[in-house]
Amino acid sequence: MTTREDTIVTEFPVTIKINGQEFVTMVCTPEYVEDMAIGYLASEGIIRKYEDIKEIWVQEDEGFVHVKTDKPNPYYEKFQNKRYITSCCGGSRQGFVFVNDALTAKKMNDIHVKVSPEDCFRLMKDMQESAVTFQQTGGVHNAALCDMNELLLSRMDIGRHNALDKIYGYCLKNDISIKDKILVFSGRISSEILLKVAKIGCEMILSKSAPTELALTLAENLGITTVGFIRNQSFNVYTGAERIMLESES
Amino acid sequence: MTTREDTIVTEFPVTIKINGQEFVTMVCTPEYVEDMAIGYLASEGIIRKYEDIKEIWVQEDEGFVHVKTDKPNPYYEKFQNKRYITSCCGGSRQGFVFVNDALTAKKMNDIHVKVSPEDCFRLMKDMQESAVTFQQTGGVHNAALCDMNELLLSRMDIGRHNALDKIYGYCLKNDISIKDKILVFSGRISSEILLKVAKIGCEMILSKSAPTELALTLAENLGITTVGFIRNQSFNVYTGAERIMLESES
Repeated sequence: MTTREDTIVTEFPVTIKINGQEFVTMVCTPEYVEDMAIGYLASEGIIRKYEDIKEIWVQEDEGFVHVKTDKPNPYYEKFQNKRYITSCCGGSRQGFVFVNDALTAKKMNDIHVKVSPEDCFRLMKDMQESAVTFQQTGGVHNAALCDMNELLLSRMDIGRHNALDKIYGYCLKNDISIKDKILVFSGRISSEILLKVAKIGCEMILSKSAPTELALTLAENLGITTVGFIRNQSFNVYTGAERIMLESES
Repeated sequence: MTTREDTIVTEFPVTIKINGQEFVTMVCTPEYVEDMAIGYLASEGIIRKYEDIKEIWVQEDEGFVHVKTDKPNPYYEKFQNKRYITSCCGGSRQGFVFVNDALTAKKMNDIHVKVSPEDCFRLMKDMQESAVTFQQTGGVHNAALCDMNELLLSRMDIGRHNALDKIYGYCLKNDISIKDKILVFSGRISSEILLKVAKIGCEMILSKSAPTELALTLAENLGITTVGFIRNQSFNVYTGAERIMLESES
Protein backbone atom coordinates (compact mmCIF):
# COMPACT_ATOMS: atom_id res chain seq x y z
CA MET A 1 0.00 0.00 0.00
CA THR A 2 1.45 3.38 -0.99
CA THR A 3 0.03 6.84 -0.40
CA ARG A 4 0.56 10.00 -2.41
CA GLU A 5 -0.30 13.66 -2.03
CA ASP A 6 -3.22 14.65 -4.19
CA THR A 7 -4.21 18.02 -5.59
CA ILE A 8 -7.94 18.63 -5.81
CA VAL A 9 -8.79 21.20 -8.42
CA THR A 10 -11.66 23.58 -7.75
CA GLU A 11 -14.44 24.06 -10.28
CA PHE A 12 -16.74 26.94 -9.53
CA PRO A 13 -19.95 27.92 -11.32
CA VAL A 14 -20.16 31.57 -12.33
CA THR A 15 -23.29 33.11 -13.84
CA ILE A 16 -23.06 36.40 -15.72
CA LYS A 17 -26.16 38.55 -15.34
CA ILE A 18 -26.62 41.39 -17.82
CA ASN A 19 -28.91 44.18 -16.62
CA GLY A 20 -30.44 41.76 -14.11
CA GLN A 21 -31.06 38.94 -16.62
CA GLU A 22 -29.28 35.56 -16.36
CA PHE A 23 -27.08 35.44 -19.47
CA VAL A 24 -24.66 32.52 -19.26
CA THR A 25 -23.32 30.07 -16.67
CA MET A 26 -19.77 28.80 -16.94
CA VAL A 27 -17.77 26.46 -14.74
CA CYS A 28 -14.32 27.90 -14.04
CA THR A 29 -11.33 28.12 -11.75
CA PRO A 30 -12.33 30.91 -9.34
CA GLU A 31 -9.66 33.54 -9.87
CA TYR A 32 -9.72 36.63 -12.11
CA VAL A 33 -13.48 36.11 -12.48
CA GLU A 34 -14.19 39.75 -13.36
CA ASP A 35 -11.55 39.69 -16.12
CA MET A 36 -13.03 36.45 -17.42
CA ALA A 37 -16.51 37.97 -17.63
CA ILE A 38 -15.22 41.06 -19.45
CA GLY A 39 -13.22 38.93 -21.88
CA TYR A 40 -16.15 36.59 -22.49
CA LEU A 41 -18.63 39.38 -23.20
CA ALA A 42 -16.19 41.14 -25.55
CA SER A 43 -15.18 37.99 -27.42
CA GLU A 44 -18.83 37.00 -27.88
CA GLY A 45 -19.58 40.45 -29.25
CA ILE A 46 -21.99 41.42 -26.45
CA ILE A 47 -19.88 44.51 -25.75
CA ARG A 48 -17.58 46.17 -28.24
CA LYS A 49 -15.19 47.85 -25.82
CA TYR A 50 -14.56 48.02 -22.07
CA GLU A 51 -16.34 51.38 -21.83
CA ASP A 52 -19.62 49.73 -22.90
CA ILE A 53 -19.74 48.30 -19.37
CA LYS A 54 -21.33 50.89 -17.07
CA GLU A 55 -20.95 48.81 -13.91
CA ILE A 56 -19.54 45.40 -13.01
CA TRP A 57 -19.29 43.62 -9.66
CA VAL A 58 -18.59 40.08 -8.55
CA GLN A 59 -20.80 38.44 -5.92
CA GLU A 60 -18.30 35.82 -4.84
CA ASP A 61 -20.36 33.71 -2.41
CA GLU A 62 -23.10 32.86 -4.90
CA GLY A 63 -20.96 32.98 -8.04
CA PHE A 64 -22.56 35.86 -9.90
CA VAL A 65 -21.03 38.61 -12.01
CA HIS A 66 -23.45 41.52 -12.36
CA VAL A 67 -22.96 43.64 -15.47
CA LYS A 68 -24.76 46.82 -16.42
CA THR A 69 -24.53 47.93 -20.02
CA ASP A 70 -26.74 50.15 -22.14
CA LYS A 71 -25.46 48.68 -25.41
CA PRO A 72 -25.92 44.91 -25.48
CA ASN A 73 -25.51 43.47 -28.97
CA PRO A 74 -29.06 43.04 -30.33
CA TYR A 75 -28.10 40.22 -32.73
CA TYR A 76 -26.51 37.86 -30.22
CA GLU A 77 -29.65 36.15 -28.97
CA LYS A 78 -31.10 35.76 -32.42
CA PHE A 79 -28.17 33.67 -33.62
CA GLN A 80 -27.17 31.95 -30.37
CA ASN A 81 -26.15 28.33 -31.01
CA LYS A 82 -27.49 28.54 -34.57
CA ARG A 83 -25.56 26.42 -37.01
CA TYR A 84 -23.71 28.29 -39.76
CA ILE A 85 -24.24 26.42 -43.03
CA THR A 86 -21.52 27.32 -45.48
CA SER A 87 -23.43 26.13 -48.51
CA CYS A 88 -26.18 28.70 -48.05
CA CYS A 89 -24.06 31.65 -46.91
CA GLY A 90 -21.31 31.64 -49.55
CA GLY A 91 -17.96 29.97 -49.23
CA SER A 92 -15.94 32.97 -48.10
CA ARG A 93 -16.02 32.09 -44.40
CA GLN A 94 -15.33 28.37 -44.47
CA GLY A 95 -14.89 26.37 -41.31
CA PHE A 96 -17.38 28.16 -39.12
CA VAL A 97 -19.80 26.03 -37.12
CA PHE A 98 -21.91 28.76 -35.48
CA VAL A 99 -23.32 31.96 -36.96
CA ASN A 100 -22.18 34.10 -34.02
CA ASP A 101 -18.58 32.95 -34.49
CA ALA A 102 -18.62 34.03 -38.12
CA LEU A 103 -19.91 37.45 -37.04
CA THR A 104 -17.36 38.11 -34.28
CA ALA A 105 -14.10 36.47 -35.44
CA LYS A 106 -11.65 39.05 -36.78
CA LYS A 107 -9.61 38.57 -39.92
CA MET A 108 -5.93 39.34 -39.34
CA ASN A 109 -4.67 40.83 -42.59
CA ASP A 110 -1.53 42.59 -41.40
CA ILE A 111 1.71 41.51 -39.84
CA HIS A 112 2.40 43.17 -36.49
CA VAL A 113 4.57 40.50 -34.97
CA LYS A 114 7.31 38.16 -36.20
CA VAL A 115 9.16 35.49 -34.26
CA SER A 116 12.26 33.39 -34.80
CA PRO A 117 12.38 29.68 -34.01
CA GLU A 118 14.38 30.56 -30.88
CA ASP A 119 11.58 32.89 -29.74
CA CYS A 120 9.10 30.02 -30.07
CA PHE A 121 11.18 27.68 -27.91
CA ARG A 122 11.85 30.35 -25.27
CA LEU A 123 8.24 31.58 -25.00
CA MET A 124 6.91 28.00 -24.71
CA LYS A 125 9.45 27.28 -21.98
CA ASP A 126 8.50 30.49 -20.14
CA MET A 127 4.79 29.59 -20.32
CA GLN A 128 5.39 26.10 -18.99
CA GLU A 129 7.54 27.38 -16.13
CA SER A 130 4.84 29.89 -15.19
CA ALA A 131 2.33 27.03 -14.91
CA VAL A 132 3.90 24.73 -12.35
CA THR A 133 0.65 23.75 -10.63
CA PHE A 134 -1.34 20.85 -11.99
CA GLN A 135 1.15 19.94 -14.69
CA GLN A 136 0.99 16.36 -13.50
CA THR A 137 -2.72 15.83 -13.50
CA GLY A 138 -3.83 17.28 -16.81
CA GLY A 139 -7.16 18.83 -17.58
CA VAL A 140 -6.19 22.34 -16.58
CA HIS A 141 -5.45 24.71 -19.42
CA ASN A 142 -2.68 27.29 -19.27
CA ALA A 143 -2.39 30.34 -21.49
CA ALA A 144 0.09 33.19 -21.65
CA LEU A 145 0.28 36.52 -23.43
CA CYS A 146 3.75 37.36 -24.74
CA ASP A 147 5.47 39.91 -26.89
CA MET A 148 8.44 39.00 -29.04
CA ASN A 149 10.74 39.22 -26.03
CA GLU A 150 8.98 37.89 -22.98
CA LEU A 151 5.94 36.52 -21.18
CA LEU A 152 3.67 39.33 -19.97
CA LEU A 153 0.73 37.55 -18.36
CA SER A 154 -0.13 33.95 -17.48
CA ARG A 155 -3.53 32.45 -16.57
CA MET A 156 -4.91 28.95 -15.98
CA ASP A 157 -8.40 27.49 -15.88
CA ILE A 158 -10.27 24.20 -15.88
CA GLY A 159 -12.45 25.49 -18.74
CA ARG A 160 -10.99 25.36 -22.23
CA HIS A 161 -11.33 28.99 -23.21
CA ASN A 162 -11.63 30.64 -19.79
CA ALA A 163 -7.87 31.16 -19.49
CA LEU A 164 -7.94 33.09 -22.77
CA ASP A 165 -10.98 35.12 -21.65
CA LYS A 166 -9.11 36.06 -18.46
CA ILE A 167 -6.20 37.38 -20.51
CA TYR A 168 -8.50 39.26 -22.89
CA GLY A 169 -10.48 40.89 -20.06
CA TYR A 170 -7.29 42.03 -18.33
CA CYS A 171 -6.01 43.60 -21.54
CA LEU A 172 -9.29 45.42 -22.24
CA LYS A 173 -9.44 46.80 -18.70
CA ASN A 174 -5.83 47.97 -18.78
CA ASP A 175 -5.85 49.13 -22.39
CA ILE A 176 -3.16 46.68 -23.53
CA SER A 177 -3.04 46.07 -27.28
CA ILE A 178 -3.23 42.42 -28.33
CA LYS A 179 -2.75 42.62 -32.08
CA ASP A 180 1.03 42.87 -31.71
CA LYS A 181 1.23 40.07 -29.13
CA ILE A 182 1.42 36.26 -29.16
CA LEU A 183 -0.77 33.75 -27.32
CA VAL A 184 0.91 30.60 -25.97
CA PHE A 185 -1.42 27.73 -25.06
CA SER A 186 -0.81 24.47 -23.21
CA GLY A 187 -3.29 22.28 -25.04
CA ARG A 188 -4.38 21.28 -28.48
CA ILE A 189 -5.45 24.09 -30.82
CA SER A 190 -9.09 23.05 -31.38
CA SER A 191 -11.50 25.10 -33.49
CA GLU A 192 -12.92 26.56 -30.27
CA ILE A 193 -9.49 27.83 -29.18
CA LEU A 194 -8.62 29.15 -32.64
CA LEU A 195 -11.92 31.07 -32.75
CA LYS A 196 -11.24 32.56 -29.34
CA VAL A 197 -7.83 33.77 -30.61
CA ALA A 198 -9.56 35.34 -33.63
CA LYS A 199 -12.23 37.02 -31.48
CA ILE A 200 -9.58 38.40 -29.15
CA GLY A 201 -7.80 39.77 -32.22
CA CYS A 202 -4.43 38.08 -31.84
CA GLU A 203 -2.54 37.01 -34.95
CA MET A 204 -0.38 34.19 -33.60
CA ILE A 205 -0.84 31.15 -31.36
CA LEU A 206 1.90 28.78 -30.19
CA SER A 207 1.12 25.35 -28.76
CA LYS A 208 2.91 22.29 -27.47
CA SER A 209 0.26 20.10 -29.13
CA ALA A 210 -1.15 19.78 -32.63
CA PRO A 211 -4.03 21.77 -34.08
CA THR A 212 -7.13 20.05 -35.43
CA GLU A 213 -8.05 20.06 -39.10
CA LEU A 214 -11.02 22.39 -38.53
CA ALA A 215 -8.84 24.82 -36.58
CA LEU A 216 -6.39 24.95 -39.50
CA THR A 217 -9.18 25.69 -42.01
CA LEU A 218 -10.26 28.60 -39.81
CA ALA A 219 -6.69 29.82 -39.23
CA GLU A 220 -6.03 29.81 -42.97
CA ASN A 221 -9.18 31.83 -43.67
CA LEU A 222 -8.60 34.29 -40.83
CA GLY A 223 -4.89 34.86 -41.48
CA ILE A 224 -3.73 33.57 -38.09
CA THR A 225 -0.31 31.98 -37.60
CA THR A 226 -0.46 28.57 -35.89
CA VAL A 227 2.68 26.93 -34.59
CA GLY A 228 2.35 23.54 -32.92
CA PHE A 229 4.33 20.65 -31.51
CA ILE A 230 6.92 22.96 -29.97
CA ARG A 231 9.15 20.42 -28.24
CA ASN A 232 12.87 20.28 -27.65
CA GLN A 233 14.29 21.79 -30.82
CA SER A 234 11.55 21.23 -33.36
CA PHE A 235 8.15 22.69 -34.16
CA ASN A 236 5.60 22.78 -36.98
CA VAL A 237 4.31 25.90 -38.69
CA TYR A 238 0.84 25.08 -39.99
CA THR A 239 -0.48 28.44 -41.21
CA GLY A 240 0.74 32.03 -41.53
CA ALA A 241 4.43 31.18 -42.04
CA GLU A 242 5.06 34.80 -43.09
CA ARG A 243 5.27 35.69 -39.38
CA ILE A 244 8.13 33.24 -38.75
CA MET A 245 11.58 34.75 -39.26
CA LEU A 246 14.12 32.67 -41.12
CA GLU A 247 17.69 32.74 -39.87
CA SER A 248 18.77 35.12 -42.63
CA GLU A 249 16.20 37.70 -41.43
CA SER A 250 16.93 37.59 -37.73
CA MET B 1 16.36 21.36 -38.71
CA THR B 2 14.43 18.22 -37.80
CA THR B 3 11.09 17.00 -39.13
CA ARG B 4 8.54 14.78 -37.47
CA GLU B 5 5.35 13.02 -38.49
CA ASP B 6 2.29 14.85 -37.31
CA THR B 7 -1.22 13.55 -36.65
CA ILE B 8 -3.99 15.99 -37.49
CA VAL B 9 -7.12 15.26 -35.51
CA THR B 10 -10.46 15.78 -37.21
CA GLU B 11 -13.18 17.87 -35.59
CA PHE B 12 -16.53 17.62 -37.28
CA PRO B 13 -19.69 19.62 -36.52
CA VAL B 14 -22.81 17.51 -36.07
CA THR B 15 -26.28 19.04 -35.64
CA ILE B 16 -29.10 16.97 -34.17
CA LYS B 17 -32.49 17.86 -35.62
CA ILE B 18 -35.55 16.67 -33.71
CA ASN B 19 -38.72 16.44 -35.80
CA GLY B 20 -37.15 18.85 -38.31
CA GLN B 21 -36.08 21.46 -35.73
CA GLU B 22 -32.40 22.28 -35.10
CA PHE B 23 -31.80 21.10 -31.54
CA VAL B 24 -28.09 21.14 -30.74
CA THR B 25 -24.76 21.38 -32.56
CA MET B 26 -21.74 19.58 -31.20
CA VAL B 27 -18.18 19.33 -32.50
CA CYS B 28 -16.98 15.72 -32.44
CA THR B 29 -14.72 13.06 -33.87
CA PRO B 30 -16.79 11.70 -36.79
CA GLU B 31 -17.28 8.04 -35.90
CA TYR B 32 -20.24 6.36 -34.16
CA VAL B 33 -22.22 9.57 -34.72
CA GLU B 34 -25.61 7.84 -34.50
CA ASP B 35 -24.70 6.25 -31.16
CA MET B 36 -23.51 9.62 -29.91
CA ALA B 37 -26.81 11.27 -30.82
CA ILE B 38 -28.83 8.53 -29.11
CA GLY B 39 -26.65 8.71 -26.00
CA TYR B 40 -26.83 12.50 -25.91
CA LEU B 41 -30.62 12.64 -26.21
CA ALA B 42 -31.08 9.96 -23.54
CA SER B 43 -28.60 11.48 -21.10
CA GLU B 44 -30.18 14.92 -21.50
CA GLY B 45 -33.60 13.41 -20.80
CA ILE B 46 -35.04 14.25 -24.23
CA ILE B 47 -35.89 10.59 -24.73
CA ARG B 48 -36.41 8.08 -21.93
CA LYS B 49 -35.58 4.91 -23.84
CA TYR B 50 -34.34 3.87 -27.27
CA GLU B 51 -37.88 2.98 -28.39
CA ASP B 52 -38.90 6.65 -28.02
CA ILE B 53 -36.97 7.22 -31.25
CA LYS B 54 -39.26 6.46 -34.20
CA GLU B 55 -36.65 7.11 -36.86
CA ILE B 56 -32.99 8.16 -36.93
CA TRP B 57 -30.63 8.71 -39.86
CA VAL B 58 -27.26 10.33 -40.30
CA GLN B 59 -26.67 12.74 -43.19
CA GLU B 60 -22.90 12.44 -43.25
CA ASP B 61 -21.94 15.03 -45.86
CA GLU B 62 -23.60 17.96 -44.10
CA GLY B 63 -23.23 16.66 -40.55
CA PHE B 64 -26.86 16.22 -39.54
CA VAL B 65 -28.54 13.56 -37.46
CA HIS B 66 -32.29 13.52 -38.11
CA VAL B 67 -34.40 12.18 -35.27
CA LYS B 68 -38.14 11.58 -35.21
CA THR B 69 -39.78 11.14 -31.85
CA ASP B 70 -43.33 11.63 -30.67
CA LYS B 71 -42.32 12.01 -27.04
CA PRO B 72 -39.79 14.78 -26.61
CA ASN B 73 -39.40 15.84 -22.98
CA PRO B 74 -41.56 18.97 -22.54
CA TYR B 75 -39.51 20.37 -19.66
CA TYR B 76 -36.13 20.40 -21.35
CA GLU B 77 -36.42 23.70 -23.14
CA LYS B 78 -37.92 25.49 -20.17
CA PHE B 79 -34.88 24.79 -18.01
CA GLN B 80 -32.13 24.75 -20.65
CA ASN B 81 -28.96 26.40 -19.33
CA LYS B 82 -30.84 27.72 -16.31
CA ARG B 83 -28.72 27.97 -13.20
CA TYR B 84 -29.73 25.72 -10.31
CA ILE B 85 -29.52 27.74 -7.13
CA THR B 86 -29.23 25.42 -4.15
CA SER B 87 -30.23 28.05 -1.62
CA CYS B 88 -33.71 28.42 -3.09
CA CYS B 89 -34.36 24.77 -3.97
CA GLY B 90 -33.39 23.05 -0.72
CA GLY B 91 -30.04 21.52 0.08
CA SER B 92 -30.81 17.93 -0.87
CA ARG B 93 -29.17 18.07 -4.30
CA GLN B 94 -25.95 19.94 -3.60
CA GLY B 95 -23.34 20.50 -6.26
CA PHE B 96 -25.62 20.95 -9.25
CA VAL B 97 -24.98 23.90 -11.53
CA PHE B 98 -27.86 23.51 -13.98
CA VAL B 99 -31.52 22.67 -13.33
CA ASN B 100 -31.65 20.07 -16.09
CA ASP B 101 -28.72 18.16 -14.58
CA ALA B 102 -30.51 17.94 -11.25
CA LEU B 103 -33.57 16.56 -13.05
CA THR B 104 -31.80 13.88 -15.10
CA ALA B 105 -28.90 12.64 -12.94
CA LYS B 106 -29.71 9.31 -11.34
CA LYS B 107 -28.95 8.48 -7.74
CA MET B 108 -27.12 5.14 -7.42
CA ASN B 109 -28.33 3.66 -4.16
CA ASP B 110 -27.45 -0.01 -4.68
CA ILE B 111 -24.25 -1.93 -5.20
CA HIS B 112 -24.21 -3.93 -8.45
CA VAL B 113 -20.48 -4.03 -8.98
CA LYS B 114 -17.39 -4.42 -6.80
CA VAL B 115 -13.75 -4.31 -7.84
CA SER B 116 -10.44 -5.20 -6.24
CA PRO B 117 -7.36 -2.99 -6.53
CA GLU B 118 -6.00 -5.46 -9.11
CA ASP B 119 -9.16 -5.01 -11.22
CA CYS B 120 -8.59 -1.23 -11.21
CA PHE B 121 -5.01 -1.55 -12.44
CA ARG B 122 -5.92 -4.12 -15.11
CA LEU B 123 -8.94 -2.23 -16.47
CA MET B 124 -6.99 1.06 -16.66
CA LYS B 125 -4.19 -0.72 -18.54
CA ASP B 126 -6.70 -2.31 -20.94
CA MET B 127 -8.33 1.07 -21.62
CA GLN B 128 -4.98 2.72 -22.32
CA GLU B 129 -3.90 -0.07 -24.65
CA SER B 130 -7.17 0.20 -26.56
CA ALA B 131 -6.48 3.91 -27.15
CA VAL B 132 -3.13 3.92 -28.89
CA THR B 133 -3.89 6.80 -31.25
CA PHE B 134 -3.30 10.34 -30.10
CA GLN B 135 -1.83 9.39 -26.75
CA GLN B 136 1.09 11.67 -27.43
CA THR B 137 -0.73 14.83 -28.32
CA GLY B 138 -3.42 15.12 -25.66
CA GLY B 139 -6.79 16.73 -26.07
CA VAL B 140 -8.56 13.56 -27.19
CA HIS B 141 -10.63 11.81 -24.57
CA ASN B 142 -10.85 8.03 -24.30
CA ALA B 143 -13.54 6.11 -22.47
CA ALA B 144 -14.22 2.42 -22.02
CA LEU B 145 -17.07 0.33 -20.67
CA CYS B 146 -15.94 -2.66 -18.62
CA ASP B 147 -17.39 -5.32 -16.41
CA MET B 148 -15.47 -6.68 -13.47
CA ASN B 149 -13.45 -8.94 -15.76
CA GLU B 150 -12.72 -7.15 -18.99
CA LEU B 151 -13.06 -4.22 -21.35
CA LEU B 152 -16.23 -4.46 -23.44
CA LEU B 153 -16.25 -1.29 -25.53
CA SER B 154 -13.82 1.58 -26.17
CA ARG B 155 -14.53 4.99 -27.74
CA MET B 156 -12.58 8.22 -28.25
CA ASP B 157 -13.58 11.78 -29.08
CA ILE B 158 -12.24 15.32 -29.16
CA GLY B 159 -15.26 16.47 -27.15
CA ARG B 160 -15.19 15.90 -23.40
CA HIS B 161 -18.38 13.91 -23.02
CA ASN B 162 -18.92 12.64 -26.56
CA ALA B 163 -16.94 9.43 -25.94
CA LEU B 164 -19.30 8.64 -23.05
CA ASP B 165 -22.38 9.46 -25.16
CA LYS B 166 -21.10 7.06 -27.85
CA ILE B 167 -20.87 4.28 -25.28
CA TYR B 168 -24.30 5.08 -23.83
CA GLY B 169 -25.99 5.15 -27.25
CA TYR B 170 -24.45 1.82 -28.21
CA CYS B 171 -25.71 0.22 -24.99
CA LEU B 172 -29.24 1.59 -25.42
CA LYS B 173 -29.44 0.38 -29.01
CA ASN B 174 -28.15 -3.08 -28.12
CA ASP B 175 -29.98 -3.35 -24.81
CA ILE B 176 -26.82 -3.66 -22.72
CA SER B 177 -27.28 -2.89 -19.02
CA ILE B 178 -24.91 -0.24 -17.63
CA LYS B 179 -25.76 -0.25 -13.94
CA ASP B 180 -23.56 -3.31 -13.32
CA LYS B 181 -20.66 -1.95 -15.40
CA ILE B 182 -17.69 0.36 -14.85
CA LEU B 183 -16.63 3.41 -16.88
CA VAL B 184 -12.91 4.03 -17.35
CA PHE B 185 -11.92 7.53 -18.49
CA SER B 186 -8.62 8.96 -19.70
CA GLY B 187 -8.95 12.46 -18.32
CA ARG B 188 -9.76 14.36 -15.20
CA ILE B 189 -13.15 13.63 -13.58
CA SER B 190 -14.72 17.08 -13.87
CA SER B 191 -18.28 17.83 -12.74
CA GLU B 192 -19.38 17.55 -16.37
CA ILE B 193 -17.96 14.01 -16.67
CA LEU B 194 -19.35 12.93 -13.29
CA LEU B 195 -22.81 14.18 -14.29
CA LYS B 196 -22.63 12.27 -17.56
CA VAL B 197 -21.80 9.10 -15.59
CA ALA B 198 -24.83 9.75 -13.35
CA LYS B 199 -27.14 10.41 -16.31
CA ILE B 200 -25.95 7.22 -18.01
CA GLY B 201 -26.71 5.39 -14.78
CA CYS B 202 -23.30 3.90 -14.05
CA GLU B 203 -22.17 3.58 -10.45
CA MET B 204 -18.39 3.61 -10.82
CA ILE B 205 -15.78 5.66 -12.71
CA LEU B 206 -12.05 4.99 -12.82
CA SER B 207 -9.56 7.63 -13.98
CA LYS B 208 -5.83 8.12 -14.37
CA SER B 209 -6.23 11.73 -13.20
CA ALA B 210 -7.77 13.42 -10.18
CA PRO B 211 -11.40 14.47 -9.81
CA THR B 212 -12.34 18.07 -9.12
CA GLU B 213 -13.86 19.23 -5.85
CA LEU B 214 -17.27 19.86 -7.45
CA ALA B 215 -17.26 16.39 -9.05
CA LEU B 216 -16.64 14.85 -5.62
CA THR B 217 -19.55 16.75 -4.04
CA LEU B 218 -21.80 15.41 -6.79
CA ALA B 219 -20.40 11.86 -6.56
CA GLU B 220 -20.97 11.84 -2.80
CA ASN B 221 -24.58 12.98 -3.21
CA LEU B 222 -25.33 10.60 -6.07
CA GLY B 223 -23.70 7.53 -4.56
CA ILE B 224 -21.13 7.09 -7.32
CA THR B 225 -17.73 5.48 -6.70
CA THR B 226 -14.82 7.60 -7.97
CA VAL B 227 -11.33 6.15 -8.18
CA GLY B 228 -8.55 8.41 -9.45
CA PHE B 229 -4.81 8.63 -9.94
CA ILE B 230 -4.57 5.00 -11.02
CA ARG B 231 -0.86 4.75 -11.78
CA ASN B 232 1.66 1.96 -11.34
CA GLN B 233 0.57 0.30 -8.12
CA SER B 234 -1.34 3.05 -6.35
CA PHE B 235 -4.72 4.76 -6.64
CA ASN B 236 -7.06 6.95 -4.64
CA VAL B 237 -10.64 6.10 -3.71
CA TYR B 238 -12.48 9.41 -3.27
CA THR B 239 -16.12 8.37 -2.85
CA GLY B 240 -18.15 5.16 -2.67
CA ALA B 241 -15.42 3.01 -1.12
CA GLU B 242 -18.03 0.31 -0.38
CA ARG B 243 -17.61 -0.87 -4.00
CA ILE B 244 -13.86 -1.53 -3.55
CA MET B 245 -13.06 -5.03 -2.32
CA LEU B 246 -10.47 -5.33 0.38
CA GLU B 247 -8.03 -8.22 0.13
CA SER B 248 -9.90 -10.22 2.74
CA GLU B 249 -13.08 -10.14 0.61
CA SER B 250 -11.57 -11.08 -2.72
